[in-house]
Amino acid sequence: MASRQSAAVREMYVRWAQELTDPDLDPQQRVENGEHWADITREPRGVDYSETDEPGRPAMWITPKSAAPDRVILGLHGGGFVGGSLYTHRKLFGHLAKAVGAKALLVHYRLNPEYHHPAPLHDAVSTYRWLLEQGYAAEHIALSGDSSGGGLCVTAVLRARELDLPLPAALLLMSPWVDMELTSETLEANREKDPYFRREFIQPLVDLHLSDGYSPKDPLVNPLYADLAGFPPMFVQAGADETGLGDAQRLAEHAKAAGVDVRLDVFPEQQHTFQMAAGYAPEADDALARFASWARPRLGL
Amino acid sequence: MASRQSAAVREMYVRWAQELTDPDLDPQQRVENGEHWADITREPRGVDYSETDEPGRPAMWITPKSAAPDRVILGLHGGGFVGGSLYTHRKLFGHLAKAVGAKALLVHYRLNPEYHHPAPLHDAVSTYRWLLEQGYAAEHIALSGDSSGGGLCVTAVLRARELDLPLPAALLLMSPWVDMELTSETLEANREKDPYFRREFIQPLVDLHLSDGYSPKDPLVNPLYADLAGFPPMFVQAGADETGLGDAQRLAEHAKAAGVDVRLDVFPEQQHTFQMAAGYAPEADDALARFASWARPRLGL
Repeated sequence: MASRQSAAVREMYVRWAQELTDPDLDPQQRVENGEHWADITREPRGVDYSETDEPGRPAMWITPKSAAPDRVILGLHGGGFVGGSLYTHRKLFGHLAKAVGAKALLVHYRLNPEYHHPAPLHDAVSTYRWLLEQGYAAEHIALSGDSSGGGLCVTAVLRARELDLPLPAALLLMSPWVDMELTSETLEANREKDPYFRREFIQPLVDLHLSDGYSPKDPLVNPLYADLAGFPPMFVQAGADETGLGDAQRLAEHAKAAGVDVRLDVFPEQQHTFQMAAGYAPEADDALARFASWARPRLGL
Repeated sequence: MASRQSAAVREMYVRWAQELTDPDLDPQQRVENGEHWADITREPRGVDYSETDEPGRPAMWITPKSAAPDRVILGLHGGGFVGGSLYTHRKLFGHLAKAVGAKALLVHYRLNPEYHHPAPLHDAVSTYRWLLEQGYAAEHIALSGDSSGGGLCVTAVLRARELDLPLPAALLLMSPWVDMELTSETLEANREKDPYFRREFIQPLVDLHLSDGYSPKDPLVNPLYADLAGFPPMFVQAGADETGLGDAQRLAEHAKAAGVDVRLDVFPEQQHTFQMAAGYAPEADDALARFASWARPRLGL
């Protein structure tokens, strides 16, 4: 049975779903509720945080006391390309960095509605390039993201390959959202188990994100259409109860068919990006521990 | 009328009061709920956090990007000498430090039930002494604390005076708890307005804290019995609806009678340490702004 602590993730999504359909909700309160996303993650402790604009975007160094100084996780937060921030995801990437024994650099890429595809992709790639320019070796960098940030990790590697940049050592993906056509069967099959991520909520996010005329089949926005041959090792995690499960499964299958070293772990009774409950929920801590033990040798740790 | 956001403070205390009387509450959940105290404070943004053991106790440097490097607020968190941590109060002192334009050093002093008076006092004073040893001038240091941490600021200055240390420039006190005899009239008068801080909850904290045989009239644990002549300027804030209002008022009167430069601001319809809602509640932000404009000239800023 899902832990009491991990149930907090589902309860949060239930509240979000109620808010979506509440026409009387004060817009300011909507913003504040978005910030309370961070509340489901426990403070990881023993981790330092320092904001920087040096990558050309607002970013935050997340430095566990025990971190190897030359190993980096580039963190791309989720939020459907409309939300999420350095502050909502600070603790999640703190837990991940601490488990792996690396620093994390969490970057605030440009978001809808002001910016659309490919702005987030460009910001992700330019931050990765900045890390390389700072002297971090590609084989010592992992990319990690949740939901839209997970998809962005994959498209960032595609774009880095186009630019002839050396590719990172590994991808750590939490419920990656990759299918901009919304064709995963789990979108319907898990509809009753997943209180929030339903077609009628996600489709407007797609329309917004592609509003500069990009196709939902463009490989740089939908990696299910990309050639993933030569891709770095990839560890995909998803919750069994989320509508996005199919995206995770199909991405893993697509990468495996291209010969990529892929691992897919599906967590029973868990929701979309359940890892956000890190520090409280044993399922989230287990998931991050699996990421860490898989990633450490791939980062030479 | 109290803002929607500040009502979150009261709602939290209502939940805590329910938990106090719930015999079935899982002890682990009680610990987790204590950590969720931090949820009522918004991320201040533009503030860096770095943990350190250098003062001889676990501590956290809280450094706003805009902070003067040689001005420090020594932060002593609340929690009735049994709770609170670097993590519950990180954001509160981040807001305060940012408003003042100084760094903050938040220290985790020893707590009950393992340690009693005078352990917290010794840790507070040794941390203050460490700051002086690092070269921070006393006239560039403010002490600030909430609830038990507020009382501890006052007793730390008393103890520093006994030790012939130079005294800090100012005290910024949020709902300071000073009366270990629990004789403030507001303890009864505000009982119906304050859902949590009632005699039957506070008395056991006193008993625990003084369990090594100290008197509740000892000036080093109850500054209402101390000679405050020569004390640094003191700004005391309290909520009009809290049972602890009398402690704040009596401390301010006692200091004023001793010739201390004292300011007391009482915030209508606010609860104990309502400043914890900083970033969300306008009343909390107003309170911290008042602290800042009062403290800046006293710190030479």
